[in-house]
Amino acid sequence: ARGYCEDVEFSPEDAARTELDFLAEVVEKAIEAGATTINIPDTVGYAIPAQYAAAIRHLKQHVRGIDKVVLSVHCHDDLGLAVANSLAALQEGARQVECTINGLGERAGNCALEEVVMAVKTRSDCFKLETNINTRRLYPTSRLVSNVTGIQVQRNKAIVGQNAFAHEAGIHQHGMLMHHATYEIMRPDDVGFSKTNLVLGKHSGRHAFRERVKELGYHLDDEQLNRVFEDFKNLADKKKEIYDADIEALIEGVMHRGAALWTLEAFTCNAGSGTLPSAAVALWRQDGTIVRDAGVGDGPVDAVFRTIERITGIDVNLKDYHVRSITMGEDAQGEATVEAELNGRTYRGRGVSTDIIEASAHAFLEVINKIALKKPPLPRVNPAHLAPTEQAAEAGV
Amino acid sequence: ARGYCEDVEFSPEDAARTELDFLAEVVEKAIEAGATTINIPDTVGYAIPAQYAAAIRHLKQHVRGIDKVVLSVHCHDDLGLAVANSLAALQEGARQVECTINGLGERAGNCALEEVVMAVKTRSDCFKLETNINTRRLYPTSRLVSNVTGIQVQRNKAIVGQNAFAHEAGIHQHGMLMHHATYEIMRPDDVGFSKTNLVLGKHSGRHAFRERVKELGYHLDDEQLNRVFEDFKNLADKKKEIYDADIEALIEGVMHRGAALWTLEAFTCNAGSGTLPSAAVALWRQDGTIVRDAGVGDGPVDAVFRTIERITGIDVNLKDYHVRSITMGEDAQGEATVEAELNGRTYRGRGVSTDIIEASAHAFLEVINKIALKKPPLPRVNPAHLAPTEQAAEAGV
Repeated sequence: ARGYCEDVEFSPEDAARTELDFLAEVVEKAIEAGATTINIPDTVGYAIPAQYAAAIRHLKQHVRGIDKVVLSVHCHDDLGLAVANSLAALQEGARQVECTINGLGERAGNCALEEVVMAVKTRSDCFKLETNINTRRLYPTSRLVSNVTGIQVQRNKAIVGQNAFAHEAGIHQHGMLMHHATYEIMRPDDVGFSKTNLVLGKHSGRHAFRERVKELGYHLDDEQLNRVFEDFKNLADKKKEIYDADIEALIEGVMHRGAALWTLEAFTCNAGSGTLPSAAVALWRQDGTIVRDAGVGDGPVDAVFRTIERITGIDVNLKDYHVRSITMGEDAQGEATVEAELNGRTYRGRGVSTDIIEASAHAFLEVINKIALKKPPLPRVNPAHLAPTEQAAEAGV
Repeated sequence: ARGYCEDVEFSPEDAARTELDFLAEVVEKAIEAGATTINIPDTVGYAIPAQYAAAIRHLKQHVRGIDKVVLSVHCHDDLGLAVANSLAALQEGARQVECTINGLGERAGNCALEEVVMAVKTRSDCFKLETNINTRRLYPTSRLVSNVTGIQVQRNKAIVGQNAFAHEAGIHQHGMLMHHATYEIMRPDDVGFSKTNLVLGKHSGRHAFRERVKELGYHLDDEQLNRVFEDFKNLADKKKEIYDADIEALIEGVMHRGAALWTLEAFTCNAGSGTLPSAAVALWRQDGTIVRDAGVGDGPVDAVFRTIERITGIDVNLKDYHVRSITMGEDAQGEATVEAELNGRTYRGRGVSTDIIEASAHAFLEVINKIALKKPPLPRVNPAHLAPTEQAAEAGV
């Protein structure tokens, strides 16, 4: 393998449950054969920190040539210990942590990149290591991954959860005002939480908008910026106050929009108790024609979905449907995410609007367009222990 | 204090960041004064397992009388290490873990009960401890807490997340079929995930329904069962196949329903692109009168909410709004959760229906009813380091 590339990683599956002497022997053989990175996966998330650290220590002590290779760890979170195990291994000399944004991955997921990075940084007194990661991009990156995968981060998730820096108890709030370090071991800015909330309104100009986009950490070309600004102006007509989260949603929307075979031209829907919910939808097809039809459903959203299926001729199985408000207030934007299945493959779509029916229609159309354009699935690099979502997010510490 | 009760717990705030000799001195004084439980809180989630274990070890070795008291730990999850720290302390002799269901709590939350319990059970070879907790109630309890608090559990959360036992990678699926222990260190049943999914339909009788409710782990009296069965029959008219999650939603709905000042009698709504969304709502008041009105909004849900506000005379600030599908398929039930604020207090409501507008109306009415009936807030037991959500969920291991 060394003949083909510089860095060869050897990874014995389920190493954490393997008998240590046998593991040491196998690893030694791999190093002799040219491996330059040795990965010790805890494939089923069975390890606990003290024991996992002992395994790494054992290899350090008993494997000839171990000091010439990079020791890597790959932990799963089945018992909630992926981050702790990875950190314990770092303290024993491991120098690569296989991890994912938001801890996504098979079953309960993998080690969460943002937690490892911030633990190493916050407790540099213990780890004495550098990650070279710009921690101020952690929160925006987490949001982006959450939007792309449709897998939401829970409110009380460490580092990137909505509540991670929210102080509820009165005595804590008092302490925070007196001296923030009393209750805050990291600052919200450190991980890229926006300081200000309320930013722009109907009368904000292009320059102020461009500045805000930059401050939020996005790099847009002129065409993208123009499209986002146009969406911003439309939104400002409907909504008095535009928050950072609104702008992020607009940007992510523009960055998402691929080649679309079908676009929403117009819709109406009727619903109510005791009535039969119905919808009328007009879709614009890439060739310039507009197709209109109507349908019924169990509710207005279902009626819209079924009408879109009728127009496009694509019938899917809906697997998951979510709506959440992105910002506060009654004129908040709603974000809809749709997960649907066709012929054993899963497709996800996302839409944003102040009207959740419209947001849902956009999300469903994204699914329909993905199917119509039949994008190939993501390649799988290492099927032995990586799920598809991990590959994009994988990074070394 | 010992004059008033048997068990006196002493808890020095932020102990994990306190100088060890000083901490030992303070703890010794507390024991001399009669404390029977010594709690060592990591109030800001700063500790890492090896160091936290060393602190517990230090107290064990240097505090006179430490063997006569119960050592307790209270960890926060700011660096994602609450569970690992608690487990490390157990290995050093701590015998009480302060934890919460779903890891709820201040900021990133507290130690997750379900993760500690399953780690101790799954790795009994390391811990040699018993928790006396019925692990088959973990998943239903997690769901109940999530419904009551409105704080959702992320899909890739250990133990109780929707994906915790889902195997995506093909090679893993193959391994599972060959021998489940290859990839599964716990079985879904161990934590109370339902084995079967598809259960009942339109023609299922009361007896089969009662059995299924019992199997799902709910204890309902005859009146409650009758109300849930009635809801079940209504749902079966709309929906071909009723899943366990549907039944759980119905039960939780009945158990939720308190004294309601306002009940939804009927509603209709119209929405569409380029049109002004509007709603007409009829509410039944406890005194037997029906009040009808109509209103407009940014979308159909907003129009319904504003019309309900107009009828009831209660104006709230909407803080959060969520809709998710509880089961799969296009006729899935949608669950709406609403969080609203009035005069500095937050109220939460929840509604379920196949029509998400109707579900949203029910959720919003629950908020309105709570305000109309002005329920007192939950008492706070230990404001120094507990958030309100923790108290209900707190438990000792």
